[in-house]
Amino acid sequence: MRILLLNGPNLDLLGTREPHVYGSRTFEDYLTELRALFPEVDLAYKQTNVEGELVAWLRSAGTEQDGIILNAAGYSHTSVALRDAITVLEKPVVEVHISNIHGREEFRHNTLTGAACAGVITGFGLEGYRLAVLHLLERN
Amino acid sequence: MRILLLNGPNLDLLGTREPHVYGSRTFEDYLTELRALFPEVDLAYKQTNVEGELVAWLRSAGTEQDGIILNAAGYSHTSVALRDAITVLEKPVVEVHISNIHGREEFRHNTLTGAACAGVITGFGLEGYRLAVLHLLERN
Amino acid sequence: MRILLLNGPNLDLLGTREPHVYGSRTFEDYLTELRALFPEVDLAYKQTNVEGELVAWLRSAGTEQDGIILNAAGYSHTSVALRDAITVLEKPVVEVHISNIHGREEFRHNTLTGAACAGVITGFGLEGYRLAVLHLLERN
Amino acid sequence: MRILLLNGPNLDLLGTREPHVYGSRTFEDYLTELRALFPEVDLAYKQTNVEGELVAWLRSAGTEQDGIILNAAGYSHTSVALRDAITVLEKPVVEVHISNIHGREEFRHNTLTGAACAGVITGFGLEGYRLAVLHLLERN
Amino acid sequence: MRILLLNGPNLDLLGTREPHVYGSRTFEDYLTELRALFPEVDLAYKQTNVEGELVAWLRSAGTEQDGIILNAAGYSHTSVALRDAITVLEKPVVEVHISNIHGREEFRHNTLTGAACAGVITGFGLEGYRLAVLHLLERN
Amino acid sequence: MRILLLNGPNLDLLGTREPHVYGSRTFEDYLTELRALFPEVDLAYKQTNVEGELVAWLRSAGTEQDGIILNAAGYSHTSVALRDAITVLEKPVVEVHISNIHGREEFRHNTLTGAACAGVITGFGLEGYRLAVLHLLERN
Amino acid sequence: MRILLLNGPNLDLLGTREPHVYGSRTFEDYLTELRALFPEVDLAYKQTNVEGELVAWLRSAGTEQDGIILNAAGYSHTSVALRDAITVLEKPVVEVHISNIHGREEFRHNTLTGAACAGVITGFGLEGYRLAVLHLLERN
Amino acid sequence: MRILLLNGPNLDLLGTREPHVYGSRTFEDYLTELRALFPEVDLAYKQTNVEGELVAWLRSAGTEQDGIILNAAGYSHTSVALRDAITVLEKPVVEVHISNIHGREEFRHNTLTGAACAGVITGFGLEGYRLAVLHLLERN
Amino acid sequence: MRILLLNGPNLDLLGTREPHVYGSRTFEDYLTELRALFPEVDLAYKQTNVEGELVAWLRSAGTEQDGIILNAAGYSHTSVALRDAITVLEKPVVEVHISNIHGREEFRHNTLTGAACAGVITGFGLEGYRLAVLHLLERN
Amino acid sequence: MRILLLNGPNLDLLGTREPHVYGSRTFEDYLTELRALFPEVDLAYKQTNVEGELVAWLRSAGTEQDGIILNAAGYSHTSVALRDAITVLEKPVVEVHISNIHGREEFRHNTLTGAACAGVITGFGLEGYRLAVLHLLERN
Amino acid sequence: MRILLLNGPNLDLLGTREPHVYGSRTFEDYLTELRALFPEVDLAYKQTNVEGELVAWLRSAGTEQDGIILNAAGYSHTSVALRDAITVLEKPVVEVHISNIHGREEFRHNTLTGAACAGVITGFGLEGYRLAVLHLLERN
Amino acid sequence: MRILLLNGPNLDLLGTREPHVYGSRTFEDYLTELRALFPEVDLAYKQTNVEGELVAWLRSAGTEQDGIILNAAGYSHTSVALRDAITVLEKPVVEVHISNIHGREEFRHNTLTGAACAGVITGFGLEGYRLAVLHLLERN
Repeated sequence: MRILLLNGPNLDLLGTREPHVYGSRTFEDYLTELRALFPEVDLAYKQTNVEGELVAWLRSAGTEQDGIILNAAGYSHTSVALRDAITVLEKPVVEVHISNIHGREEFRHNTLTGAACAGVITGFGLEGYRLAVLHLLERN
Repeated sequence: MRILLLNGPNLDLLGTREPHVYGSRTFEDYLTELRALFPEVDLAYKQTNVEGELVAWLRSAGTEQDGIILNAAGYSHTSVALRDAITVLEKPVVEVHISNIHGREEFRHNTLTGAACAGVITGFGLEGYRLAVLHLLERN
Repeated sequence: MRILLLNGPNLDLLGTREPHVYGSRTFEDYLTELRALFPEVDLAYKQTNVEGELVAWLRSAGTEQDGIILNAAGYSHTSVALRDAITVLEKPVVEVHISNIHGREEFRHNTLTGAACAGVITGFGLEGYRLAVLHLLERN
Repeated sequence: MRILLLNGPNLDLLGTREPHVYGSRTFEDYLTELRALFPEVDLAYKQTNVEGELVAWLRSAGTEQDGIILNAAGYSHTSVALRDAITVLEKPVVEVHISNIHGREEFRHNTLTGAACAGVITGFGLEGYRLAVLHLLERN
Repeated sequence: MRILLLNGPNLDLLGTREPHVYGSRTFEDYLTELRALFPEVDLAYKQTNVEGELVAWLRSAGTEQDGIILNAAGYSHTSVALRDAITVLEKPVVEVHISNIHGREEFRHNTLTGAACAGVITGFGLEGYRLAVLHLLERN
Repeated sequence: MRILLLNGPNLDLLGTREPHVYGSRTFEDYLTELRALFPEVDLAYKQTNVEGELVAWLRSAGTEQDGIILNAAGYSHTSVALRDAITVLEKPVVEVHISNIHGREEFRHNTLTGAACAGVITGFGLEGYRLAVLHLLERN
Repeated sequence: MRILLLNGPNLDLLGTREPHVYGSRTFEDYLTELRALFPEVDLAYKQTNVEGELVAWLRSAGTEQDGIILNAAGYSHTSVALRDAITVLEKPVVEVHISNIHGREEFRHNTLTGAACAGVITGFGLEGYRLAVLHLLERN
Repeated sequence: MRILLLNGPNLDLLGTREPHVYGSRTFEDYLTELRALFPEVDLAYKQTNVEGELVAWLRSAGTEQDGIILNAAGYSHTSVALRDAITVLEKPVVEVHISNIHGREEFRHNTLTGAACAGVITGFGLEGYRLAVLHLLERN
Repeated sequence: MRILLLNGPNLDLLGTREPHVYGSRTFEDYLTELRALFPEVDLAYKQTNVEGELVAWLRSAGTEQDGIILNAAGYSHTSVALRDAITVLEKPVVEVHISNIHGREEFRHNTLTGAACAGVITGFGLEGYRLAVLHLLERN
Repeated sequence: MRILLLNGPNLDLLGTREPHVYGSRTFEDYLTELRALFPEVDLAYKQTNVEGELVAWLRSAGTEQDGIILNAAGYSHTSVALRDAITVLEKPVVEVHISNIHGREEFRHNTLTGAACAGVITGFGLEGYRLAVLHLLERN
Repeated sequence: MRILLLNGPNLDLLGTREPHVYGSRTFEDYLTELRALFPEVDLAYKQTNVEGELVAWLRSAGTEQDGIILNAAGYSHTSVALRDAITVLEKPVVEVHISNIHGREEFRHNTLTGAACAGVITGFGLEGYRLAVLHLLERN
Repeated sequence: MRILLLNGPNLDLLGTREPHVYGSRTFEDYLTELRALFPEVDLAYKQTNVEGELVAWLRSAGTEQDGIILNAAGYSHTSVALRDAITVLEKPVVEVHISNIHGREEFRHNTLTGAACAGVITGFGLEGYRLAVLHLLERN
């Protein structure tokens, strides 16, 4: 199974930001573990801080992937463009948020993009990505 | 590991409601499968339509369980009492919603109870319960 | 024809509350009259102050009754759980309010439950129940 | 008993609009049936698309009628002028809506005019008019 | 003088929750002290997590008690049913909140039930119950 | 000086409505007095319940009158069309309200039309018309 | 092709209002030009300041015309009645606004009627009517 | 007749501010004219920039004056204290605004104090004070 | 124990305003009683209609008093300055309102100052001051 | 005449997305037709999913083009940056939306960018681009 | 150059409030430093807790000063009176806030007075006053 | 000291846009002056119209710079991504706006990014950048 894991703005920071909280693992370290957990999955990974690149990558993922895991971070709450890109995609998209968006500032409660996804997993830390893969495998 | 799965109002209906959509499995049928998947988990199950009973059960779960999976359904969006009960609980609570609350009517977008949980899983159908168990096992 | 008349919180007070306004008839007195008016109807009656019991009774009414008359009183304005219970019911539900909800405080203008009913009758006093029976008979 | 049935904008369309839904009866056909049901009622009927004409007709109805049945349709949600006209009327006004206003777009949930009426009947189709007559007879 | 002290959801937790803050006294311990302070008062006590039970108990309190002290906790902010029950009660109801509701999350600022009470005491901890008794005695 | 006094919906009711409050004078009676007070003014008077007629009369008043006194009653709060008609008029328009709109329901606080007038006089009863004439004379 | 051009309140003013801005052409002058541009179109024209007349004319246009161009001016922002009339019409309606409604006061941003039309053209001056005809011809 | 004219913040500026607009008359100059117009009125005048002084002066005016003319300027829109002071006053208060508050920024549309006054006159410039005196004389 | 009782705008009116409701006692009369009830308390009293004086008095009270009772009346709902003054004070402040603010107009429901106080007592009439003293004594 | 047609996010999808609705024409196919219709126009075309690129292209268009047709899709509803870029441009910008934004979700009703454009054309499908060219030619 | 530095409510507290945070410097100490930094500036200083005094001082500053530095603290967020006083002033006013108002409670985000100032400096602590002087010198 | 000056969308326009207002200096001209004023500062400069590039540059600035001056222009009001990038940065960020955001359209009043900065300087034109440098030097 081919899965694309798409991270949005500021998510390249893991491992350097607040190591006493998140540990000193970078996202790349985590990715290695995740791939080891699911040898049967061809797990591609991309990160960008640019909203429009997320839009473009979702587009091409439609033909190349079997499922997408998306953490659009700050863009999740305002991006109509991303929502539209998810809506027209024919492959399942699972939205993941590392922190619990419902327990933070009010402008993070609403996920405009999540409404267009198959489902949303929020608050479980990096573990959320593992659950997302598990769901896509099951769905397959 | 001991886990309590708590279902709120109208969730006893699965299997009889719209069988062409959800299949003819009742929630009890699903529960049997779930228990089979996780023989190492002592998985208790309760369902009630009464908000205050959910509050009470959460309370006693604090000492008897290692984790709770809560689908408070319609009460998730308005219940300050449930939110308070979750906040004081010292065991992790995972909120599950069968449908994607972000994609339904606006009064379902907000989850007052979810903000007090460890995390929220929404939109994956019954599969959401399996993901919740997987997370609680990992967390343990 | 079998009809269930379901009254919510505080509606057991009629006859004792403000007798100079409503007369000294209790709801039970009124019920006797109502049954006398419609000898062809098997008119069951239940009252509870507990939101979850209304949910449960609506559930079982789905198989036992031909129609339901519901006055959920204060729960009508906030209960997502009741709304969901009405939505999945395959029998017609008529919502009745004794006072005119549109002419009272703003938090009573909206009826979350009424939106899921066949129709709403508000402002006609106890007479509203008679109109509800008349409609269910016609509909039948 | 003299009753005026007042229909507002677009309500002259029944019978031609979506005949597969409402049947091919025009409102005039329905009116004939309604008059036949209540031979003791002198049932006058007027329809207009002009808000101000509804205001004027309500005014004169004050002296000529014993009760009014009003379906102001789209004007119900915004017309302060109609609300004022109903408020000063000394005869009972029953508001009828064919569809269930609580289950449609949000701008239809509020009935500014209904707040000034004796009561509101919404969602029962043409049947709502019959219930309104029944109430006015009872009230008389 | 007979007074009923009614506690709502989660208020059975005192003494076990955060003992370093509230001390290890349970609410029952506090109650013993309170009764000792006011030997002339017949102080009944009930606690429930169920909104509808609070409604029911308020009802019966109307005839059996001279005054009611109510801490409906999380239900205070949303319960139209409780508000209605207080409104029709002919005995004085004093609302007590242990924490200062005005200094917490915005959804706790509004007290729908407090508006129907004789008065509201908020923010003084358990001490608020003593003040409420003092007021009811004075009022008597 | 030529002045047009334009009354909107329901204002033809004075003298018959609540005579114990407003006296038994009709608006026509008042008009006779007003004309007697200002013999130098050519005071035309029109009343309609139709929003569009107010628009049309304002239009023609632009060339025929030196000033307009407008009481658009219920239309003042919602009519963009009337506001536009006043905006393009080259003659001064004085808005009069008999009751104090700021002290009534919230939907009457805002006067969309008044914002386009030279000024607004609200709350002085019929006396408001006299003040309006006095202003137009002074302005002249 | 038969097209009805329907103008709402205040739109009979063109040519007299602010001639230095709009030129001294009246709408009738413009209409003559428009008809000359499209000799193949049978272009009827009506103007009224009365909301209900617009409703009525839309109704009859359903059978007599192939397309409608509607500029309801101030009524566009609040008229549920007009919206309903457009919704049931089986012929395409194109909404035109002379000025750009999105760049004016906030109460003009929303077009309740436009939502029910085939499309909306706003901000191009009188030119908007020509574009509307061009679209209806193409659609035909 | 004794009348107190009370001006609030920034109203001591007339005559120096924008003389090309308002002329070079100070408010004192205007006051002299106003007193000359009404020799039968004992017209006292006070100005302050302090909200609480307005409150205090309104208080004492209750016994010393027959009527009050109040222009609380910027305080009109937010002052609950002034509103309360007006409400308990047993003498009529007429609110005057020099500019048309309905045609300015949205935070000036609402007049919290005006709702407690006998009436409000807004938009007529200094002329508004003359109209206010005329009304108080008539009322007397 | 030294306590400062601070009254805000319009609270000097008691005893003269509506004597049939509040009795003919002035606040000074009440104060005498209050002092007699608590001979062990050095109870200072100040009243002002000026917001800034309340701010200043709160400031100096920080060093001179052991506790403050504040009824800021109309300023409670809007004064950020008072809230800040209370926040930095190191002595407990108890907010008292004579009427039940939750049961009055919506702009009185929110108490911006109360959120910064130790607690709020609202609705018990003058009795509220006694409860406040009782609390401060207990706290001491 | 030189015109730049600028398409925003997801608009490169036409022809592959829902071919049964939009036909199998790609936007490039449509563009060929459009250029054939207007041989006198030098019609440049750019598409990007990146908001900032739209900003940059608008900037350079100011000197190179005679008019711009902009469909910013999802960015239209939130982009202050795009609005600013349009505002400073000295060439006319026509906003086009393929679907009718007023008839879709509420977050699409508002067009922040459209307010800064010469005009907005919404709801006519691809035909909207043709109308935009027709307007720019006329304007020229 | 003459500059008036105007401080509003609670700003006389510096040096005594939270010395571990702000140091034990009083505002007067800071002022001495500030004057030493700018010997060419005649720097006057006033502080008051009374909104109306700020209004009055701004007024007189118009003729006596070359620039004003204003920290109206809590009044900045609600005072229409201060905003009006700044608007009519012909000298530049720079608003300073010690803490970052955008990062605090929502009722502090909006600065009604700042909108009328030349500019706003917020979040730099006492340093903000130095920046304000630097700007006024540059401007001069 | 190393400082990065980051400009967002449309800020490359200075010097060409409205030269009669801003002068014909380009931002580069201004930058030369600014560098000349502060020879001790190593002042880097970047401009982009792409939100995600601002995010990326802020990231790398964390290690390479001692302070950042950010003018995110239109993105300041909506960008959660930028706010997150500032929050995790360990170097001080000063937000600068050329115009006074509080005095413009309401959607510019709120600065989501400014809340995460050390402070905000708004309304002083290009001068704001000089003040920002002065602050960073002082802070250093």
